[in-house]
Amino acid sequence: MSDYRFLRACRRQPVDMTPVWLMRQAGRYMAEYRAVRAKYSMLETIRTPELACEITLQPLRAFALDAAIIFADILPLLIGMGLQLEFVSGEGPVICNPIASAADVDALRTPPAAENVPFTLEAIRLVRRELGGWLPLIGFSGAPFTLASYAIEGGGSKHHLKVKSFMLNEPDAWHRLMEKLTQVVGDYLVAQAEAGAQALQVFDSWAGVLAPADYRQLVLPYVQRVIAQARGTGVPVIYFGIDLNGMLGLLAETGAEVIGVDWRVEIDDAWRQLGDGVAIQGNLDPALLFGPWEQLQPRVDNILRRVAGRPGHIFNLGHGILPGTPVDNVRRLVEYVHERSAALKESAS
Amino acid sequence: MSDYRFLRACRRQPVDMTPVWLMRQAGRYMAEYRAVRAKYSMLETIRTPELACEITLQPLRAFALDAAIIFADILPLLIGMGLQLEFVSGEGPVICNPIASAADVDALRTPPAAENVPFTLEAIRLVRRELGGWLPLIGFSGAPFTLASYAIEGGGSKHHLKVKSFMLNEPDAWHRLMEKLTQVVGDYLVAQAEAGAQALQVFDSWAGVLAPADYRQLVLPYVQRVIAQARGTGVPVIYFGIDLNGMLGLLAETGAEVIGVDWRVEIDDAWRQLGDGVAIQGNLDPALLFGPWEQLQPRVDNILRRVAGRPGHIFNLGHGILPGTPVDNVRRLVEYVHERSAALKESAS
Repeated sequence: MSDYRFLRACRRQPVDMTPVWLMRQAGRYMAEYRAVRAKYSMLETIRTPELACEITLQPLRAFALDAAIIFADILPLLIGMGLQLEFVSGEGPVICNPIASAADVDALRTPPAAENVPFTLEAIRLVRRELGGWLPLIGFSGAPFTLASYAIEGGGSKHHLKVKSFMLNEPDAWHRLMEKLTQVVGDYLVAQAEAGAQALQVFDSWAGVLAPADYRQLVLPYVQRVIAQARGTGVPVIYFGIDLNGMLGLLAETGAEVIGVDWRVEIDDAWRQLGDGVAIQGNLDPALLFGPWEQLQPRVDNILRRVAGRPGHIFNLGHGILPGTPVDNVRRLVEYVHERSAALKESAS
Repeated sequence: MSDYRFLRACRRQPVDMTPVWLMRQAGRYMAEYRAVRAKYSMLETIRTPELACEITLQPLRAFALDAAIIFADILPLLIGMGLQLEFVSGEGPVICNPIASAADVDALRTPPAAENVPFTLEAIRLVRRELGGWLPLIGFSGAPFTLASYAIEGGGSKHHLKVKSFMLNEPDAWHRLMEKLTQVVGDYLVAQAEAGAQALQVFDSWAGVLAPADYRQLVLPYVQRVIAQARGTGVPVIYFGIDLNGMLGLLAETGAEVIGVDWRVEIDDAWRQLGDGVAIQGNLDPALLFGPWEQLQPRVDNILRRVAGRPGHIFNLGHGILPGTPVDNVRRLVEYVHERSAALKESAS
């Protein structure tokens, strides 16, 4: 297992070339994905293990990626807790009965993942069977804060005013909510590893809306607990969020082996602030894939050059790949990261 | 003039207590403002100097603020350049004929501010007359990149894909666009100082969507030019943007005397990265004003304590004050910043 380039990089072991995968690599920019989604809704594809398995494999057939990531979503976990989730076309996810009071928190259930999202665990088993020894598989979950944010806001949000107001005005209920989410997320991560996931990414997509002092006090302790539980299974854990570049020092305290960073920071600056104890994942601006290759290439070079010769870099975008991304640029990017990083290693030795 | 607490802090001179003003301090959270806006549209209030003057003064009568900021908007500057701007209720600003090609860039006019936005220059003169020696007045403009972003996206944007695609796919037209905006913005800043503005804030609200390398190459040179031109008038310049905490080192190169930071970084961490050459403005999360005072106070203390004893801090929010903010918390915040910072000074001496 530790011969996979991706897993070696997670553990900061030397590799022949920089491993690369892309957040949302199975997604709307691919015709193959759109063809499946033309027939099935978002929730249907997630809840049908054969469809989730097929979608997971699509980008691996098209590009020379170094890891698969299970096709799923962070929000279905909330359904079994008692929240009514819908994916509204053009609007994204909507929760029809968002949390608005301490009583709502106390009414939440905490079912184990095997009951709550058995379809994703089954999809992981199917993908592992399909992959054999070809590529490693990443499982993932939303982090407690990000799930709390969706549960309280009822969907995406510009100012995250409801979740922040809840934190401040209902501090006891906030901690009870985070306790419940920590239990559900921790169990889900462990269940994914047991089902066959060989690495786990914790998405804290919204943590960057907080001030560092609030993150440290109200969010970080729960992140530490889910990551410690996930690491107990022996698989490496990646922690990722955006807009966290003002508090990179705190992210080193999460306990994750790998920190994913967005594109708003030079990767070596980020790594210096994170310290030597972690690997780093990132960090190309996904919008740059809409440019011509001659503009894209120097920006990829910039990233590779800044971390050349230092084990523990996993190339990725700084956020999910965008719908409409030209597929040719994706193919070329993946090949170029391999070629160029191998050449940089060659010239250094 | 240099006896104003706010202007002394801009120049990193000692003050008796920390000066405070709030971005969007004249805004929808105040009943007095909503009463004016019930009768006049956004553009009418901006284009009628008497109304803009009245709105500018509203928060000064209500709170013990240390500076006025002229009531205006960054976007009307684009109208005289040839862009059709509308403020659509609930949606924010919309540009009906956004820039989509190099030819669109070449068709843009570059009228001087005295022709383009005479109403704001006149409002500045009126406010100065009303204020007398009471409080200093801040003028402002959008920065070239942020204006370019609105002009190309046609309004707000989630991924800023159009402006980034334009930058990459039309590099020559991009530079011509930034040249034109630099000319218009530089002239506007100078005209505001000549009309009586005693400090100038440059809002680069969207610069934080860029990777540092792109900011450095495609944006920073134009920021430097407009700031150098504004500083030529002798008034201090504040540069503000959000999501820039991964590139604070670059912001020190803008040439601004004061850097405004958002709430996603501890203020002393930011100042350390910015260096000793600048004053700092910020950085309370505006959402925290929706909490009870006992939650708000320790968060204000945290900011004041981290920069205590160091001249050059202007207290502000990390972004504009939000609609719906409780007015009592605003009043209490402003008074508390004064009291607490004076006490911290007392105990240190």
